[in-house]
Amino acid sequence: MPLTEVALGIDIGGTNTKIGFVDRNGVCLADSSVPTGEDDVDGFLPRLYKAVDKTLLPIRDRVKLLGVGMGAPNANYYKGTVEKPTNLPWRELSPLCDWVSEHYKVPAKITNDANAAAIGEMRFGVAKGMKDFLVVTLGTGLGSGFVVNGRIAYGHDGFAGELGHVTVNPEGRMCGCGRRGCLETYVSATGIRRTVYKLLADHTEDSEMRRVSFDDLDASDITQAALRGDKIAIEAFEYTGRILGLKLADVMALLSPEAIILFGGLTKAKEILFEPIQRHMEGNMMPIFKNKVKLLSSGLTGANTAVLGASALIWNELEG
Amino acid sequence: MPLTEVALGIDIGGTNTKIGFVDRNGVCLADSSVPTGEDDVDGFLPRLYKAVDKTLLPIRDRVKLLGVGMGAPNANYYKGTVEKPTNLPWRELSPLCDWVSEHYKVPAKITNDANAAAIGEMRFGVAKGMKDFLVVTLGTGLGSGFVVNGRIAYGHDGFAGELGHVTVNPEGRMCGCGRRGCLETYVSATGIRRTVYKLLADHTEDSEMRRVSFDDLDASDITQAALRGDKIAIEAFEYTGRILGLKLADVMALLSPEAIILFGGLTKAKEILFEPIQRHMEGNMMPIFKNKVKLLSSGLTGANTAVLGASALIWNELEG
Repeated sequence: MPLTEVALGIDIGGTNTKIGFVDRNGVCLADSSVPTGEDDVDGFLPRLYKAVDKTLLPIRDRVKLLGVGMGAPNANYYKGTVEKPTNLPWRELSPLCDWVSEHYKVPAKITNDANAAAIGEMRFGVAKGMKDFLVVTLGTGLGSGFVVNGRIAYGHDGFAGELGHVTVNPEGRMCGCGRRGCLETYVSATGIRRTVYKLLADHTEDSEMRRVSFDDLDASDITQAALRGDKIAIEAFEYTGRILGLKLADVMALLSPEAIILFGGLTKAKEILFEPIQRHMEGNMMPIFKNKVKLLSSGLTGANTAVLGASALIWNELEG
Repeated sequence: MPLTEVALGIDIGGTNTKIGFVDRNGVCLADSSVPTGEDDVDGFLPRLYKAVDKTLLPIRDRVKLLGVGMGAPNANYYKGTVEKPTNLPWRELSPLCDWVSEHYKVPAKITNDANAAAIGEMRFGVAKGMKDFLVVTLGTGLGSGFVVNGRIAYGHDGFAGELGHVTVNPEGRMCGCGRRGCLETYVSATGIRRTVYKLLADHTEDSEMRRVSFDDLDASDITQAALRGDKIAIEAFEYTGRILGLKLADVMALLSPEAIILFGGLTKAKEILFEPIQRHMEGNMMPIFKNKVKLLSSGLTGANTAVLGASALIWNELEG
């Protein structure tokens, strides 16, 4: 029987690293995960290699590894490095592609998780056949991956796609990047929590969320409260949708994508989140752009979405 | 003697249409202009063709026409049309490329003037060799052309590049597009005039501009006043630079271009304009983007810049 060609997809997150062997049709043949850990990349790599070997074991006789695709925070696609990651306890500069490529004797490519998701959507998800679209990941922060003319916009230095750090208000909320008023301080799982607390402060209305501490409140609690008709929670989604809708209208003016694909934990709120985003986005668009762009949910479902995206990076390199 | 291959560049403006025959090195062999006129495109085209014939006459025995490149407001690159132009008295939809291509029996391409300028800069100007940059045209309005991975970002529908219509303030100044607070209502030759009048209203300070009517004031008067130390004029450039700088920092976060190239009448103010833009742009950037992007003046000089840009559209098509 001929060997099945596979790419190893690795998604390095702040807490866990997911790994999987994916064929060119996006079928994940074997997957697992390993804690990213609190140590430097030197400590992480042996753990990663061990987990990869163990995952490969049951399928090793029937696959051929063609390359390794990785998603990681602050990854530089051009250099194959992770630079100054803010949510990994790693050194300033890790030439991860060189290390991994040498270890497995196959090509390795890396980019940030949102770009990996965009490539995954283009190859396996709802963006099949699209040439101009963007993916917005709404998790702890807000990430983005822009596809222009069928290719990821990495920018001159490899760091493009930071929609989370466009400015909503220069005197606004403190951001982890050291600036104030960045979009992700308003629009993300963390951002909507901050919004709830602002609304609890500004209004006198009762809310079930008045009985939850800031640290205990998470985005799914806010979704549940909104579904139960909690006015503060509903208003928090309205506020989130207004701010993201306005910024997506700006993106529309600049790049006129065919679709905007939302991805990540906060999208579990579904229509409670999507409806106000769509309304405010359309309401803020120039006439020539109105009613053109599709606001979509990710087409990469299941536990392996990030791994699929990371593996797609290799399929994309190999097949263009 | 072998014939010199040329492209016909046509820049259709609200008042005048410029035409020129340009070789592949960006040398304009013959040029002229014709009033765009107050009539529909039916009336315009015979005037255009006549002017082109007259311009061609002295060089017709030594050139070979390979194509026609056009820059025009609301041009759709994909369809080859001009659609709903707000500053031309034309019908809703003009399939200009079809008409012109049929008339001259060569390929014709059209895009908006800022995209044409971007292609011109890439081919003949300061963006030679660059893959990621943008051109911002500061004239009556604010236009932009984005180059990503070496290609113009036309967007899904052909209308991308409307930096002039990102929102500064949703309750802000009325814009010609029907919305409020668009960037071009603040940052353009018209925008800075509006800013001067706002500052004259807000402050009590004397200014030479208090003795000029709104209709009589133009951007060069404001530059001259600033050079003479007029505090209102200086503050108007500071205000303009603050708003454009903030929005360019946003563009940096999204696309991380190598350079931002400013073009058009308002750039005659030179350092009075460039210094506050640069300062506010850098001041609003995420740490990873700081001190990377070049803020440049257009490298297309002389009277034929728009024609060079339009002709470059054809050279770009022919040579990739």
